[in-house]
Amino acid sequence: MKKKPGKRRIKHGLAPGSLVFTGVQKMEGTRITLIQYNESVYQEQELKSIDDLLGLMKDFKGVSWINIDGVHDTKTVELIGGHLGLHKLTMEDVLSIGQRPKIDTYDDYLFIVLKMFMYKENTHDLEDEQISFILKENTLLTFQEKEGDVFTHVRNRIKEGKGWSRKRGADYLLYALVDAVVDHYFLVMETLGEAIENIESDLLSAKDDAILPKIHALRNETLYLRRSVYPLREVVNRLEKSEHPAINPDTKIFIRDLYDHTIQVIESIEVFREMASGLVDLYMNTISNKMNSVMKVLTIIATIFIPLTFVVGIYGMNFENMPELGWRYGYFLILGLMVLIVLLMVIYFRKKKWM
Amino acid sequence: MKKKPGKRRIKHGLAPGSLVFTGVQKMEGTRITLIQYNESVYQEQELKSIDDLLGLMKDFKGVSWINIDGVHDTKTVELIGGHLGLHKLTMEDVLSIGQRPKIDTYDDYLFIVLKMFMYKENTHDLEDEQISFILKENTLLTFQEKEGDVFTHVRNRIKEGKGWSRKRGADYLLYALVDAVVDHYFLVMETLGEAIENIESDLLSAKDDAILPKIHALRNETLYLRRSVYPLREVVNRLEKSEHPAINPDTKIFIRDLYDHTIQVIESIEVFREMASGLVDLYMNTISNKMNSVMKVLTIIATIFIPLTFVVGIYGMNFENMPELGWRYGYFLILGLMVLIVLLMVIYFRKKKWM
Amino acid sequence: MKKKPGKRRIKHGLAPGSLVFTGVQKMEGTRITLIQYNESVYQEQELKSIDDLLGLMKDFKGVSWINIDGVHDTKTVELIGGHLGLHKLTMEDVLSIGQRPKIDTYDDYLFIVLKMFMYKENTHDLEDEQISFILKENTLLTFQEKEGDVFTHVRNRIKEGKGWSRKRGADYLLYALVDAVVDHYFLVMETLGEAIENIESDLLSAKDDAILPKIHALRNETLYLRRSVYPLREVVNRLEKSEHPAINPDTKIFIRDLYDHTIQVIESIEVFREMASGLVDLYMNTISNKMNSVMKVLTIIATIFIPLTFVVGIYGMNFENMPELGWRYGYFLILGLMVLIVLLMVIYFRKKKWM
Amino acid sequence: MKKKPGKRRIKHGLAPGSLVFTGVQKMEGTRITLIQYNESVYQEQELKSIDDLLGLMKDFKGVSWINIDGVHDTKTVELIGGHLGLHKLTMEDVLSIGQRPKIDTYDDYLFIVLKMFMYKENTHDLEDEQISFILKENTLLTFQEKEGDVFTHVRNRIKEGKGWSRKRGADYLLYALVDAVVDHYFLVMETLGEAIENIESDLLSAKDDAILPKIHALRNETLYLRRSVYPLREVVNRLEKSEHPAINPDTKIFIRDLYDHTIQVIESIEVFREMASGLVDLYMNTISNKMNSVMKVLTIIATIFIPLTFVVGIYGMNFENMPELGWRYGYFLILGLMVLIVLLMVIYFRKKKWM
Amino acid sequence: MKKKPGKRRIKHGLAPGSLVFTGVQKMEGTRITLIQYNESVYQEQELKSIDDLLGLMKDFKGVSWINIDGVHDTKTVELIGGHLGLHKLTMEDVLSIGQRPKIDTYDDYLFIVLKMFMYKENTHDLEDEQISFILKENTLLTFQEKEGDVFTHVRNRIKEGKGWSRKRGADYLLYALVDAVVDHYFLVMETLGEAIENIESDLLSAKDDAILPKIHALRNETLYLRRSVYPLREVVNRLEKSEHPAINPDTKIFIRDLYDHTIQVIESIEVFREMASGLVDLYMNTISNKMNSVMKVLTIIATIFIPLTFVVGIYGMNFENMPELGWRYGYFLILGLMVLIVLLMVIYFRKKKWM
Repeated sequence: MKKKPGKRRIKHGLAPGSLVFTGVQKMEGTRITLIQYNESVYQEQELKSIDDLLGLMKDFKGVSWINIDGVHDTKTVELIGGHLGLHKLTMEDVLSIGQRPKIDTYDDYLFIVLKMFMYKENTHDLEDEQISFILKENTLLTFQEKEGDVFTHVRNRIKEGKGWSRKRGADYLLYALVDAVVDHYFLVMETLGEAIENIESDLLSAKDDAILPKIHALRNETLYLRRSVYPLREVVNRLEKSEHPAINPDTKIFIRDLYDHTIQVIESIEVFREMASGLVDLYMNTISNKMNSVMKVLTIIATIFIPLTFVVGIYGMNFENMPELGWRYGYFLILGLMVLIVLLMVIYFRKKKWM
Repeated sequence: MKKKPGKRRIKHGLAPGSLVFTGVQKMEGTRITLIQYNESVYQEQELKSIDDLLGLMKDFKGVSWINIDGVHDTKTVELIGGHLGLHKLTMEDVLSIGQRPKIDTYDDYLFIVLKMFMYKENTHDLEDEQISFILKENTLLTFQEKEGDVFTHVRNRIKEGKGWSRKRGADYLLYALVDAVVDHYFLVMETLGEAIENIESDLLSAKDDAILPKIHALRNETLYLRRSVYPLREVVNRLEKSEHPAINPDTKIFIRDLYDHTIQVIESIEVFREMASGLVDLYMNTISNKMNSVMKVLTIIATIFIPLTFVVGIYGMNFENMPELGWRYGYFLILGLMVLIVLLMVIYFRKKKWM
Repeated sequence: MKKKPGKRRIKHGLAPGSLVFTGVQKMEGTRITLIQYNESVYQEQELKSIDDLLGLMKDFKGVSWINIDGVHDTKTVELIGGHLGLHKLTMEDVLSIGQRPKIDTYDDYLFIVLKMFMYKENTHDLEDEQISFILKENTLLTFQEKEGDVFTHVRNRIKEGKGWSRKRGADYLLYALVDAVVDHYFLVMETLGEAIENIESDLLSAKDDAILPKIHALRNETLYLRRSVYPLREVVNRLEKSEHPAINPDTKIFIRDLYDHTIQVIESIEVFREMASGLVDLYMNTISNKMNSVMKVLTIIATIFIPLTFVVGIYGMNFENMPELGWRYGYFLILGLMVLIVLLMVIYFRKKKWM
Repeated sequence: MKKKPGKRRIKHGLAPGSLVFTGVQKMEGTRITLIQYNESVYQEQELKSIDDLLGLMKDFKGVSWINIDGVHDTKTVELIGGHLGLHKLTMEDVLSIGQRPKIDTYDDYLFIVLKMFMYKENTHDLEDEQISFILKENTLLTFQEKEGDVFTHVRNRIKEGKGWSRKRGADYLLYALVDAVVDHYFLVMETLGEAIENIESDLLSAKDDAILPKIHALRNETLYLRRSVYPLREVVNRLEKSEHPAINPDTKIFIRDLYDHTIQVIESIEVFREMASGLVDLYMNTISNKMNSVMKVLTIIATIFIPLTFVVGIYGMNFENMPELGWRYGYFLILGLMVLIVLLMVIYFRKKKWM
Repeated sequence: MKKKPGKRRIKHGLAPGSLVFTGVQKMEGTRITLIQYNESVYQEQELKSIDDLLGLMKDFKGVSWINIDGVHDTKTVELIGGHLGLHKLTMEDVLSIGQRPKIDTYDDYLFIVLKMFMYKENTHDLEDEQISFILKENTLLTFQEKEGDVFTHVRNRIKEGKGWSRKRGADYLLYALVDAVVDHYFLVMETLGEAIENIESDLLSAKDDAILPKIHALRNETLYLRRSVYPLREVVNRLEKSEHPAINPDTKIFIRDLYDHTIQVIESIEVFREMASGLVDLYMNTISNKMNSVMKVLTIIATIFIPLTFVVGIYGMNFENMPELGWRYGYFLILGLMVLIVLLMVIYFRKKKWM
């Protein structure tokens, strides 16, 4: 996951509304899928070219969902935008990877751009992907950077018609898709929570192999998530408040529910931030405790032997007149004396709770 | 008490409004209790099946309080929801344990979900439980995860009719129950306050056995409580401001009082947070003071003996021409000299306040 | 001063509006004082029973100020409440010690509850006391926990009629009393300021006997004050904005002035909080500086003697062939060498600014 | 500069609106200056008594600026207040040194109180002084604690008529004077900025003689300034928004400019606060780096000599059978061995980057 | 980049609206460029004197963009201001370098002042420059401190007519130029992000040569940027909300886009601030880890040799009766004993994870 905000150099110096893809190409080609349904019909087809699109849409009475995977193909995106009468700035935002989540209201359509988070199947790395929604009457356009998304469940539910109001319009579809995106945030929250718990128990059981970089990475990840999720609250709130004709009043009760979920994600992130900074304190303390205990034991050893070394030094002096040297058991007396010193010091240290 | 926010995986990929229980089942079966009262009558009965419910409610002129213990039984919850004409999303929220406290206003009913905190009788562990309220005309529905609640006092007061306006409607009952929940928060605040005071006095009397994990746990607990109580303010505020027909204007003065209590709980939590971070400072300081005093005493001992060891080293040299060695009282002179050195060093250390 | 927020257990489980005294009884019995005045008359009397009250009030044209010392007597409080037609919740708040400062507007009266701070005459300990005001037409009720208050000056000014508009109503009296309470906050601020200055100068002159507990207590005191004073701002603001008939528009200019004072107190507390946390930094630094200087001097001594001890060790070896031992002035040469070593090390340490 | 907020004891217990000077008398007597001007006339005179004032003002068509130096003379202030019909609370605020900057709107006049900062000419100490403005129709009253102010430039500009619209009214004069006060804040900002830069370069060049008290004083100064300047923003903002007849709409564009300057001062103070706390970090680090480098070098020396001392200790033993002692070049071999040990240790330390 | 806020001394004591240049002169002379265009025409010319300007502007139907490089020439600026009927305060702000970004609305024109950031070509130092915009009907005036700006791309796009609506008015030009300024902020963000990443990887790979001053500089830079960019949000927001006739409603959709970019820049800065303070933690930790590991190894060595030195000290004593000294293999036994001691200590240290 890239954590550096502010990538926009590629577009630097171009006119506003210039259609340039600013991300990294993640798939080859572009795939356009058209799903159309109403109460009785469900049809799904992959389109070869844009030209088929308009015809197919005109004839159909119901919801049309056009999904474009691979936004690096500026040509295709531009064509679709032209067909549907989208504003130049909308098309620019679709192509500019690194957008802040936002909602833009135009006279005849709504434009929403979000960040989607999911786990790579093999590496369990967190990946993020920008996704754009355009809602125009009964048509929903979605643009993704690459194939594979978090919408499989939604697609299946439409197909099966199970638990799904095929009677509802494209605005409900929009809601269902955004809800699926937010649902994935909960998965991320859970993984973060587990990561924090793991670090915590590592810290309390005093395993400290390279824990700081982990905490540091965690904090940066939390920062990044926060930056992506915070604007989402405003997006959903404005969607709920919106008087746009494309949004059916009946759908608003669902959007309010979605708003609650968004708040919940944001609060989780805030809690994680505070927990992460609590972890830093805990880490600093564990480190210093450990170091202190090392220093303490070593210093105690040193302190016991220094007076002893002094004592043996005394009887290593070469004075001619040192009565003790001539005593029969002088040597053994001194050895005893030294044992006594050691014992007294140990008792003193014990009493002072240093040992 | 689980402290990890963001558990929602179980529902991942399901349609919005799907009725799935997301918590841990805490009791067997489901218990439905119906309490009905008006100025003259009070009756309480346990229902075997939902079907009896509608008949019992239709015939009664007064307040009906239906309490359901054990929300894991999605069938029962769904049936009740159907009977009372509740929205699918409401039913979903009732079943989703881990909800953020909130209030939802529907045309014909109010939906409130809260977190309840209480102490386990044996272990004195803090437990939390989600509780949902649905207020529809003169009927109040409450959903709890398991039997045993904080409402015993309220139930007794209704039964005895003591200090209790049986004349008032179901909105006053709602207020009384939420007030009972908030009252329990004060118990939690008290326990937290005592925990902080204990840690503080432990710190000041220098007992430091494993105090940091305690402080850390305390901070996490405060974080968790805060997350549960903060939204409560908004819930109660919106309840007070609500123009919903189910809320009698006479009840609002009580809700305002409840709002004051909520603010008081929130401020207590804020104070505890600041106190807890003050404790960390105090702890860090106690630790470093203790370590410093260990190091200081040990270093002083070492420093006194190092020069002495040097002196005895001198007279351990084997030079042929060392006049002092031949002196009659050289040995004793040297011993005296060393005593003098020790005395001077002790005086110096004393003057510098290092001893 | 108790610093633990959240005491409310005593009331736990009781009906809202139950009249129970939640504090600690601070005086015996209850004292009811009635002061009545208008432009020409001033009379002050202590009442034996509540029954006299209504008669005395009915006959008088002017301001009546009823002061009740000792709110632990729930009977008396209840009676007065009944006579004046006060809401059950108001009476409950009067009796609940530990209220958050607040203002409640009822149709026919205003209810204000505040925290009063003063110094005990003997111990100079800070004491706090809850005081409640009820303003109803031209009558002002004040409830205090015990005798002895901050209102002596106000009482004298009314009596003497000096600097005091006896023409003004009970709302002006309310203002004057609250102003007296806020005036006492300034005394507390001053004492806090002096305490901070004392600690600061102790720290800079390196007296550190038990300074941390002092700073810790100071921070907790500041926290407690803050919690009591912050809501005051809202209380006074709402009093100023209030359209209640009991508040004469002419009095509002004084309440605005009172508001300014409240803001000033709050800002002082904020400054003290920042200063107190600055003190912690200063303290930590003083401690570490002191420890460092101890370690430094001691380590320098050790370092000087270690090489010397090595040198004398060399000539204490018993090799048969050690030419220096036979030299006539070997011993004195070595002594000279060691003096040289010491000098060089001292010069080096001086240059490096370690000595 | 006094930094302790909250001085108000002197007034404690007095009636609201009592006229008592609460500051320290800074000059002898009181000086009243009257400046009157219109498009054609400019006259400046020092008044002996208040009585002359009214006559002089009545006859003049144009702006009258009355400046009173030395507010300790409560008599004079009271008289002027009476002549101009000012509210008792206004006069009280004029005399109460230690006021929070504020604006009070009365029906027929505006009252503004500010803090002025300037440098003493000799000591370069920062001094603060309270200044009050009263704007009533075409008359401006200013009250200062002592002679000597920041208004010399304004006075000269009026006199010379240069760059100065003598056509404008007293509200423009008020603006010009407040602008002069704010201009002086910029000087203070500059000095603070230089102080921070000096400390910073001292820290980076490792001069640390008593830097912490300097940083501490700087932080307290910043705190004090902040407390004085923050309310100014509100004052100027309310002046701009004010619909008071004394403020000519044409002047508002200038007040808006003044507002921008105030914001700029506030932002500077915020930046200084963050910088000052950055300095503390830098200081702590410098100290610990320095201490660490002392400890490191000393410990390295000790560590090199300890094994050597052990080696020479071995050959100081008195065993009868120690073959090496009899070797011809044993002594020199051992000396060589020790040189080798030192070399190896130095290489090891170098590799580990400890030297 | 100067980081010290609050430079305004140069103007101290002057009348408001005095035209004085407060910056550092960055180029010689002043260069006036006039670009005029409409759908069919594009002409660009450098003007020798102001007098030509009015004539050229009167005759042209389309957008006129007058760019003045070198605002130190107060004469020229004053003349232009006079010709276009600008307010004295506007002209003063144009000349006052160090302005806070702001927008001022006058009846017949809009005034915007911004900070522009760019990299010096040779040194890669960050430079900032103040730029002022005046939009009056179809004329846009821009004032810069020196030649060379971030507008080259915009100028080229107009000239080529590519991607550029020559049909649009001067308000669109204003938008395009401000957008170019904001675009440059993204470059700065990117460089900051790289700097942070470099410091981070230096820290984790334990290269710590003078990293703290780098972090310190980074934090100050972030502070400075923040102070420049924060007000920009308000500027753009008020531009979007503005009902000023000079702003065409069609342009607002672009300004909204610009607003999104501004928010994005601000959020990046906030993230950088948090990251930078995370870096300080990481740095402190790296330092203390490193020091700890030095101390640990050295102390271990010392601790091993101290008991050994004691042992050899024992057999260096000169007692007459020390049986071991006479043993045939006493010396070798002792050597073996010491090897054993070393082994045991190493094993103990290993077990305790200190080695």
